[in-house]
Amino acid sequence: MHPALCPMLDRAAYIGGLDGVSSLKGAEAVGVEPKGTMPHALIIAFEDQVKAWEAFDEVMAPEVPRIALVDTYSDEKMEAIMAAEALKDRLDGVRLDTPRSRKGDFAEIIREVRWELDIRGYQDVKILVSGGLNEGRVRILSEAGVDAFGVGTAVSDAPTLNFAMDIVELEGRLTAKRGKLGGKKQVWRCPECLADTVLPFKASSQKCPICGNKTEPMLKPLVKDGEIVAELLKPKEIREYVLQQIGKLSLKNISH
Amino acid sequence: MHPALCPMLDRAAYIGGLDGVSSLKGAEAVGVEPKGTMPHALIIAFEDQVKAWEAFDEVMAPEVPRIALVDTYSDEKMEAIMAAEALKDRLDGVRLDTPRSRKGDFAEIIREVRWELDIRGYQDVKILVSGGLNEGRVRILSEAGVDAFGVGTAVSDAPTLNFAMDIVELEGRLTAKRGKLGGKKQVWRCPECLADTVLPFKASSQKCPICGNKTEPMLKPLVKDGEIVAELLKPKEIREYVLQQIGKLSLKNISH
Amino acid sequence: MHPALCPMLDRAAYIGGLDGVSSLKGAEAVGVEPKGTMPHALIIAFEDQVKAWEAFDEVMAPEVPRIALVDTYSDEKMEAIMAAEALKDRLDGVRLDTPRSRKGDFAEIIREVRWELDIRGYQDVKILVSGGLNEGRVRILSEAGVDAFGVGTAVSDAPTLNFAMDIVELEGRLTAKRGKLGGKKQVWRCPECLADTVLPFKASSQKCPICGNKTEPMLKPLVKDGEIVAELLKPKEIREYVLQQIGKLSLKNISH
Amino acid sequence: MHPALCPMLDRAAYIGGLDGVSSLKGAEAVGVEPKGTMPHALIIAFEDQVKAWEAFDEVMAPEVPRIALVDTYSDEKMEAIMAAEALKDRLDGVRLDTPRSRKGDFAEIIREVRWELDIRGYQDVKILVSGGLNEGRVRILSEAGVDAFGVGTAVSDAPTLNFAMDIVELEGRLTAKRGKLGGKKQVWRCPECLADTVLPFKASSQKCPICGNKTEPMLKPLVKDGEIVAELLKPKEIREYVLQQIGKLSLKNISH
Amino acid sequence: MHPALCPMLDRAAYIGGLDGVSSLKGAEAVGVEPKGTMPHALIIAFEDQVKAWEAFDEVMAPEVPRIALVDTYSDEKMEAIMAAEALKDRLDGVRLDTPRSRKGDFAEIIREVRWELDIRGYQDVKILVSGGLNEGRVRILSEAGVDAFGVGTAVSDAPTLNFAMDIVELEGRLTAKRGKLGGKKQVWRCPECLADTVLPFKASSQKCPICGNKTEPMLKPLVKDGEIVAELLKPKEIREYVLQQIGKLSLKNISH
Amino acid sequence: MHPALCPMLDRAAYIGGLDGVSSLKGAEAVGVEPKGTMPHALIIAFEDQVKAWEAFDEVMAPEVPRIALVDTYSDEKMEAIMAAEALKDRLDGVRLDTPRSRKGDFAEIIREVRWELDIRGYQDVKILVSGGLNEGRVRILSEAGVDAFGVGTAVSDAPTLNFAMDIVELEGRLTAKRGKLGGKKQVWRCPECLADTVLPFKASSQKCPICGNKTEPMLKPLVKDGEIVAELLKPKEIREYVLQQIGKLSLKNISH
Repeated sequence: MHPALCPMLDRAAYIGGLDGVSSLKGAEAVGVEPKGTMPHALIIAFEDQVKAWEAFDEVMAPEVPRIALVDTYSDEKMEAIMAAEALKDRLDGVRLDTPRSRKGDFAEIIREVRWELDIRGYQDVKILVSGGLNEGRVRILSEAGVDAFGVGTAVSDAPTLNFAMDIVELEGRLTAKRGKLGGKKQVWRCPECLADTVLPFKASSQKCPICGNKTEPMLKPLVKDGEIVAELLKPKEIREYVLQQIGKLSLKNISH
Repeated sequence: MHPALCPMLDRAAYIGGLDGVSSLKGAEAVGVEPKGTMPHALIIAFEDQVKAWEAFDEVMAPEVPRIALVDTYSDEKMEAIMAAEALKDRLDGVRLDTPRSRKGDFAEIIREVRWELDIRGYQDVKILVSGGLNEGRVRILSEAGVDAFGVGTAVSDAPTLNFAMDIVELEGRLTAKRGKLGGKKQVWRCPECLADTVLPFKASSQKCPICGNKTEPMLKPLVKDGEIVAELLKPKEIREYVLQQIGKLSLKNISH
Repeated sequence: MHPALCPMLDRAAYIGGLDGVSSLKGAEAVGVEPKGTMPHALIIAFEDQVKAWEAFDEVMAPEVPRIALVDTYSDEKMEAIMAAEALKDRLDGVRLDTPRSRKGDFAEIIREVRWELDIRGYQDVKILVSGGLNEGRVRILSEAGVDAFGVGTAVSDAPTLNFAMDIVELEGRLTAKRGKLGGKKQVWRCPECLADTVLPFKASSQKCPICGNKTEPMLKPLVKDGEIVAELLKPKEIREYVLQQIGKLSLKNISH
Repeated sequence: MHPALCPMLDRAAYIGGLDGVSSLKGAEAVGVEPKGTMPHALIIAFEDQVKAWEAFDEVMAPEVPRIALVDTYSDEKMEAIMAAEALKDRLDGVRLDTPRSRKGDFAEIIREVRWELDIRGYQDVKILVSGGLNEGRVRILSEAGVDAFGVGTAVSDAPTLNFAMDIVELEGRLTAKRGKLGGKKQVWRCPECLADTVLPFKASSQKCPICGNKTEPMLKPLVKDGEIVAELLKPKEIREYVLQQIGKLSLKNISH
Repeated sequence: MHPALCPMLDRAAYIGGLDGVSSLKGAEAVGVEPKGTMPHALIIAFEDQVKAWEAFDEVMAPEVPRIALVDTYSDEKMEAIMAAEALKDRLDGVRLDTPRSRKGDFAEIIREVRWELDIRGYQDVKILVSGGLNEGRVRILSEAGVDAFGVGTAVSDAPTLNFAMDIVELEGRLTAKRGKLGGKKQVWRCPECLADTVLPFKASSQKCPICGNKTEPMLKPLVKDGEIVAELLKPKEIREYVLQQIGKLSLKNISH
Repeated sequence: MHPALCPMLDRAAYIGGLDGVSSLKGAEAVGVEPKGTMPHALIIAFEDQVKAWEAFDEVMAPEVPRIALVDTYSDEKMEAIMAAEALKDRLDGVRLDTPRSRKGDFAEIIREVRWELDIRGYQDVKILVSGGLNEGRVRILSEAGVDAFGVGTAVSDAPTLNFAMDIVELEGRLTAKRGKLGGKKQVWRCPECLADTVLPFKASSQKCPICGNKTEPMLKPLVKDGEIVAELLKPKEIREYVLQQIGKLSLKNISH
């Protein structure tokens, strides 16, 4: 959601019955402490799940629950076992934020994680789930053994344009998590039929796969050293650009 | 939409290709002059369509188009004929904001209005339509003869809670337009099953038609002489109230 | 229905449980008095609803109920208020025969009429409805407040070709009620593709909008001064004409 | 259809393009000779298909086509072979009026009849079909080899109550054709729940299978020696009887 | 089913609750006596139903039930009456193996057979049904009066390619039962578009009805005097033939 | 499929156009060399993917392609990268036999594997897929980048009871691959309502979760040291057991 709306959404979610909120401004609007767990970026920064969990355990205040994110590089079941073996009794929970492409039967994955934790004696470790949730899935996954849910999109009252920021390269090393393509990329757009092609950043430009025209790189710097460096257009100019682009659309282009 | 969002929506609508916007803040955000036509409140304030149209014609600057709103008290076809006969060649257009309950086949109503204007020699009078529009209806109504559209809800990117402010009583006289019930009302809510009953303001309270409990009046003063006079609750208090109300819901109550 | 079948239909409807019938021959077949209310033609003959209701009230025998038809020129709600204010306590009921194009939510219109009559003290005025009824709609409209129904097509046991006779011009003055186009018309048919075009009677003929051929006027005198003046064809001749017309039909023509 | 309507229906069917009509009054209304073929009653009167076809061939004028009805007692394919072998080159066609319960794939039956006639050298014998036809089935059966169709119900413009008169007993001998139950019957109706039970005429009455009440025989003489002997009720009396019977209906009774 | 699988299927069917099996090997696998009734081939060998039933009755051991197959040449109802009149009290049951094309409402046919047997005093004669059965049809037909069922395809656990061996010619005489075309045939295949045409065996070859090419006869001797006389291809050769045929398939060919 | 049928199925699949078969008997029936790749059991025996791939590479004849199975413990993308880094240029392909519960968007997973191999310079490594394939999925996955498919169930002509043998414990160590629960289990069945409960082998028995009755362990030794040690029942005894179990079934039991 647009950040200007977030505090209102957090307030409405809290009023509607949710237990807590994660944004600083939202928590302030509600009058409670914000809550949250570690992001994928932490794991990727260490390029190793176990090191990341152990570092988190080492430096965080004791009252912060130890919730290990267990879906970055390997299978959820395997990473949950790794987390339990690494933090032992200090582990409070595991969070599964499984990418959509790996979620064939998520309830089944939850049951496997629960089984493997239990059979190793970790009955007290909670299972948290986030991503792609709605009221129907919460009911199904509760029955499968999930203890807590992090819900976002489904409780906003408006359609969202989903996007995510992901670390895919680290000082030249490819580091994409499961569900993401490794390495920096360039987007090449055809100015005629508007088709986009995504390539590794250093790959040379290609002709448009739809119409054969020359394509153009779309990524441009917007902010540099904290300063806006891109030219900002006026509404009238944007409108003219939009109407000109719409003029290029045809059924053929839309259907590819 | 929430007024804080309006300028953003107006800007997006203009950028997306619409010809103009009607709110002052939105027009300012876009950098154009705001546009609009007379409201039902003007007709109701005069309690007579013809007097309202003539007064508008008398006092407005000459560059403002004369667009008569023709659905307040009588049939659209009849009011369109009345407007043409009242303002004659000075009439630029008629606007139909027909209530949903009278819109059995709106394209047919448009064809009748166009036919009756044409057969009387008013081929130059434009037909404008507002209310309940989307991209499908705009296409159908264009073919039926509509010249311009006032679109609101359908171009916002979020679900809306539709409500309207209507004059239904004027110094004690009943004045509701078509589609609205005349006279001031009170809403009586049952504190047990949450059913609402709407009655004329002076009617005495009734027992709840669902469960027979005593009902309570819901209308309370929020603002008086420009001052907020209602008590504002904290998020935590609202949340407790919401959870308590949800506890009263049952399938029986929801289905009525 | 074909007039030769009407008495049989009336008899069957009465036997099946309806309360009365409106045709003279049908009532005779059943052995009861025929019942009915004023037609739109009465209102149009006066070119004024109130004058028509008052004239009806003045000349009809006292035992005939005063049922005002309230949908001719203005909105049902407005005409119902006008009728109550004109006939006062002598008004027994209002009849709504609302045209399909104005019937977006007929139950809602009924609720408004009931509310406005009640809030003005006319709780005893009944609401009658006719037109477009079936067993489902009767149930819905009963709950919305209708007291009696005039049902026709739905109780005949055969598909009907609906048509109506309407006064649309009166000594040169345009007088169409809501839902009808004003003024006398001519129908122009294309002899090639059979497309029909309806125009004001005095408008000059047009080329066919489908295929561009010359069109021909279809209206011909059938009866003059009570005498059949049109030539009557034999079954064999009609059959040949039908087969010849069918030969002109093509998917292209049918789909327009 | 009601006999009073038949001439009108025949005229409309002829005008609409059919080749001929079978009723005397209809043919008179159209101005052509009526056409038709032998009924099942002829076969049943002889209690033998071959004797019936031979008798027809013997006494009918030479210009009357020899069309044998081939579905009374045995399979259509078998009776078609029998008819060809009996009348030889004098056979003009066979008519199939197959009962619905034997019509699993009628096009397949037609193809078999055509094959068996052809392989025996009767390529000139036509196949006629009657019963249960509509525009879709005519197209399918034409492709399967049918040369002519006798269409009734589907070209009337009204719903019909189908019934048929069949000879099921002949001087005490059981003679029902395929699709009919042999022997005279009595209908026993329960006066409480209106359930009907059909039994051989001489079987003693039974208790109602639904509610256990005593049942009553329904068959009563209406006409004797050409005189109406049954009491005729007035519309008002019939209406009272209908409303009383409707009062006995309940969901339980309707659903059996 | 493939004969190698039959004993396994029979064993599974018996274990699953069926009362008996008909194949010799299957009965052996189960350890019970095989059961069955006369085939159509018996009736066709006699070219007369009654003679066949009487011969069966004459030569079979007394403990074998007399079950007459009653659908070969005439209608089931008629043949059931014929069987009862031929074998009288010795008749134990009738079997209906009605062809699909004659099974418009099989439950209705059963009710007619039951009625005609009962009204003639044969209440003890059982009705057996075989062919096209599944669990749904067994339930429906049980209610219609069937006493026993012979189920095959529906209890095998695999899709089947249905085919049947039928006697259609006997020493030069055409003898096809209902549902089969009389006489020996040849299949002519088009080598280009793979369309098959079935003709009487002695008819001369035709051009392909789809593409006009010359067609080729497909029937070749496989076994003569108990010896395999056809050339057997190797898997590799068959595979090449299949791939070559697939290459000839096109949407046009498939859709005919 | 039943092993007795396998050679027939392999032969039919090969004749129908597949490139090869994997069973020894099937390959013999067809007359070709059998083909196949490593199983999960190999990886699990090593308890380490990389060691298993390296051992395979070390001991297999040089003409055997090096196809690494890459879905046992970690994510397909991660294991594919590990395999490429372990075997380098000797790696011919990777096989994905992804469990259903991890296959949210398998085409997306394929695209990621292809991207990560390509960006690291392994454009020549093929992608093979097995499990859950049919003609529709083969088309979709081909477009996503799969080079070869291992198809089983979908080309057999019969419904299959899918089951798999998996190593879940190795000398007391839990070793289940993704999609399987770790450790030896016992199945406890309720003799009353037939509900099954699966528990770790050493867990003590539980009451039936449906009806509260005592449950019984179902696993019994069938074969010991190559000898059948279980008692084999006769068809009649099995049939009695089946009918007795069916008698215990009720809608309540079936629906859990």
